[in-house]
Amino acid sequence: MKDIQNQLHQWILKNQDQAIQLLRRLVQEASTQKNEANAQALIIEKCRQLQLELDIWEPDIEKLRQHPYFVSARTSFRNSPNVVAIWKGAGGGRSLILNSHIDVVPEGDTQQWKDDPYSGQIKEGKVYGRGASDMKGGTASLLLAIEALQSLGIKLKGNVIFQSVIEEESGGAGTLAAVLRGYQADGAIIPEPTNMKLFPKQQGSLWFRLIVSGKSAHGGTRYEGVSAIEKASLILARIQQLETERNQRMVDPLYENIPIPIPINVGTIHGGTWPSSVPDCVVLEGRMGVAPNETIEQAKQEMARAIHECNEQDEWLREHPVQLKWFGAQWLPSEIEPTHPLMQALSRSYRHVKREEPVIEAAPWGTDGGLLTQVGKIPTVVFGPGTTAVAHYPNEYIEISQMLEAAEMIALTMIDWCEMDTSV
Amino acid sequence: MKDIQNQLHQWILKNQDQAIQLLRRLVQEASTQKNEANAQALIIEKCRQLQLELDIWEPDIEKLRQHPYFVSARTSFRNSPNVVAIWKGAGGGRSLILNSHIDVVPEGDTQQWKDDPYSGQIKEGKVYGRGASDMKGGTASLLLAIEALQSLGIKLKGNVIFQSVIEEESGGAGTLAAVLRGYQADGAIIPEPTNMKLFPKQQGSLWFRLIVSGKSAHGGTRYEGVSAIEKASLILARIQQLETERNQRMVDPLYENIPIPIPINVGTIHGGTWPSSVPDCVVLEGRMGVAPNETIEQAKQEMARAIHECNEQDEWLREHPVQLKWFGAQWLPSEIEPTHPLMQALSRSYRHVKREEPVIEAAPWGTDGGLLTQVGKIPTVVFGPGTTAVAHYPNEYIEISQMLEAAEMIALTMIDWCEMDTSV
Repeated sequence: MKDIQNQLHQWILKNQDQAIQLLRRLVQEASTQKNEANAQALIIEKCRQLQLELDIWEPDIEKLRQHPYFVSARTSFRNSPNVVAIWKGAGGGRSLILNSHIDVVPEGDTQQWKDDPYSGQIKEGKVYGRGASDMKGGTASLLLAIEALQSLGIKLKGNVIFQSVIEEESGGAGTLAAVLRGYQADGAIIPEPTNMKLFPKQQGSLWFRLIVSGKSAHGGTRYEGVSAIEKASLILARIQQLETERNQRMVDPLYENIPIPIPINVGTIHGGTWPSSVPDCVVLEGRMGVAPNETIEQAKQEMARAIHECNEQDEWLREHPVQLKWFGAQWLPSEIEPTHPLMQALSRSYRHVKREEPVIEAAPWGTDGGLLTQVGKIPTVVFGPGTTAVAHYPNEYIEISQMLEAAEMIALTMIDWCEMDTSV
Repeated sequence: MKDIQNQLHQWILKNQDQAIQLLRRLVQEASTQKNEANAQALIIEKCRQLQLELDIWEPDIEKLRQHPYFVSARTSFRNSPNVVAIWKGAGGGRSLILNSHIDVVPEGDTQQWKDDPYSGQIKEGKVYGRGASDMKGGTASLLLAIEALQSLGIKLKGNVIFQSVIEEESGGAGTLAAVLRGYQADGAIIPEPTNMKLFPKQQGSLWFRLIVSGKSAHGGTRYEGVSAIEKASLILARIQQLETERNQRMVDPLYENIPIPIPINVGTIHGGTWPSSVPDCVVLEGRMGVAPNETIEQAKQEMARAIHECNEQDEWLREHPVQLKWFGAQWLPSEIEPTHPLMQALSRSYRHVKREEPVIEAAPWGTDGGLLTQVGKIPTVVFGPGTTAVAHYPNEYIEISQMLEAAEMIALTMIDWCEMDTSV
């Protein structure tokens, strides 16, 4: 094993350039929602080169709609293919899903980016661009791990099922489609940017919309109207209070280093149509974290209660209550035991490479792991290079060295979990 | 005079239907910014019928730009004509401008309208629709007043200069264009919806934009970002405080019945691009009232100081200050003495018709009167039917009886101010 680890390490060091180039090309394809096809084409090209068994399909939204955990604001996944690529094992070992999403969030305010958000530029050992950390770096790690093992002539007993899915940033319809297509395994790894921490638990999350009504009037006699912006401030304050209340209950030691284990983020605000009119409507949209041991339904009820209270405490809102709607994305929470065999296998690989104990925490955000664990019944660990401190940010980047280390650990875990086939 | 008043009253009662029909047709033409042409065509048709001397032109934006009080976000006034129509006097009397704007603010949230916002429907003695009060009702009063005098065979000594201008709701470029085209008079009446009060003073106003920066991050680790929505709440609170401070200084007795003499209205808010990202930018737009005895420059400085203080009191804003920009519309404040001869003439007409004293107040909003008074040096009184309690609101309407009363008072004021020509 020591030998194989050394060979792997050397091979990855020597061949890092092609992984870096793949990552740069992936970043350069701005695969925001509905624009995933070009980036998937690069994935397909690479999987063909690795002689994996390819399955490429546009998920059927009408079929998916039947599923209780399907969420999407889209009307079709045309031109948004899912890609699954199988490295067939010789048989007898445990199978492993390696799941990665190809979609990225929009680049936001381009003024805050030092370079083109999709430059894929390399500076000081980092690849820059939207999606570098979340999660094209992880994708590159997975493909590098498979390529390294193949190049060293290693064959595995269990199947390795690589998945490059759409829609993770909007609630996981891509992974749900892969599960419902029948892809099963004894375990799964999702290389989201955990900064190399192991996450056996992860929070779920929900998207919400709050519609605040006011009463329009001329701005010069604004006292004759009711400002929906002023009323939205009340709701914003109540949401902050709710976030505090919910997080005070989070006592799981895996969250002890997370400042806000299950945040409530208000991401957008839009209201009013004219500077000198009193705004009669404000719409807020956001994301609510769901604890790993909480149900989606419990979280929804708690939010509804808070909004109801806020409505009751204001004369105007009592008559014109703020409306709460759940829409768009939803990620199921999930957990496996921190001592699960897959956690043990990953921890062993981690120790081999880093010569130190891995950090084990609970994920501060939702991933497709909830769907894999709850719907697919596939025990899932989230572990990958890069960090959410830069994901969804301007000037997103990934440390190349971390991407290479993650590839090495995942390759070792594949050997550990799926077992080497020495029959040939 | 008593005789003429009776004749006028009877004629208007008898011929009210055509004025109501004109008003309905004006309301049915949705003359929001850039869409004024169809409503102006109705005005032109009516002025032709009254055999007034017409001047129809699209203001030259490049020439207007040279003027220090020109404000407009537009790049051209193509298809947005100004209309001036002169009823030539026999000579010797004082001249009078009757100024009315044809543009209306957008209808806002159509859900809050019981009918089509541009229905022009009549119900219980009211005409409904956007612009009914602000200020197509006033426009109808002016044209009815001229028609009534003509129909009774009255000729005046002074010129009556009727103006139907564009852009009042966006800062008065239409009236500025009329002033710069050379239209002068000894006095002016603007029948904005004062609910039949006389306004010798009026507040000015300015449009502002506030750009609040945050720092984007994944919503699940929102503590790694800075929410521009949270920072915008600080600015909103500071603006409310500034409004309170400024209004505590308003001791002019003409404002004693106005809850907030010079309001600061935040009319629009827009920020963020994704529910599960921390918003990195929020833009607020609003309108700041300027006291009649204050300069535009003083008001701007006071707002800038408040925003600066708010920036200094917050660690993030100190490094990433909120930016304040003045844009779009601007209305100059103005005042004439409450005892000015035009005020006296209007008051007399008011007493004739209503048999009671007029209410004299200061206007809670800006009008084109600032430009007429400050740039044109034309003493201006704002007086008209309708009320801002419904202007800029859903379900805007005007009481038909008020529109008719205003027409009668304005006709009497024309006789009083311009004098009857009895030489024929």
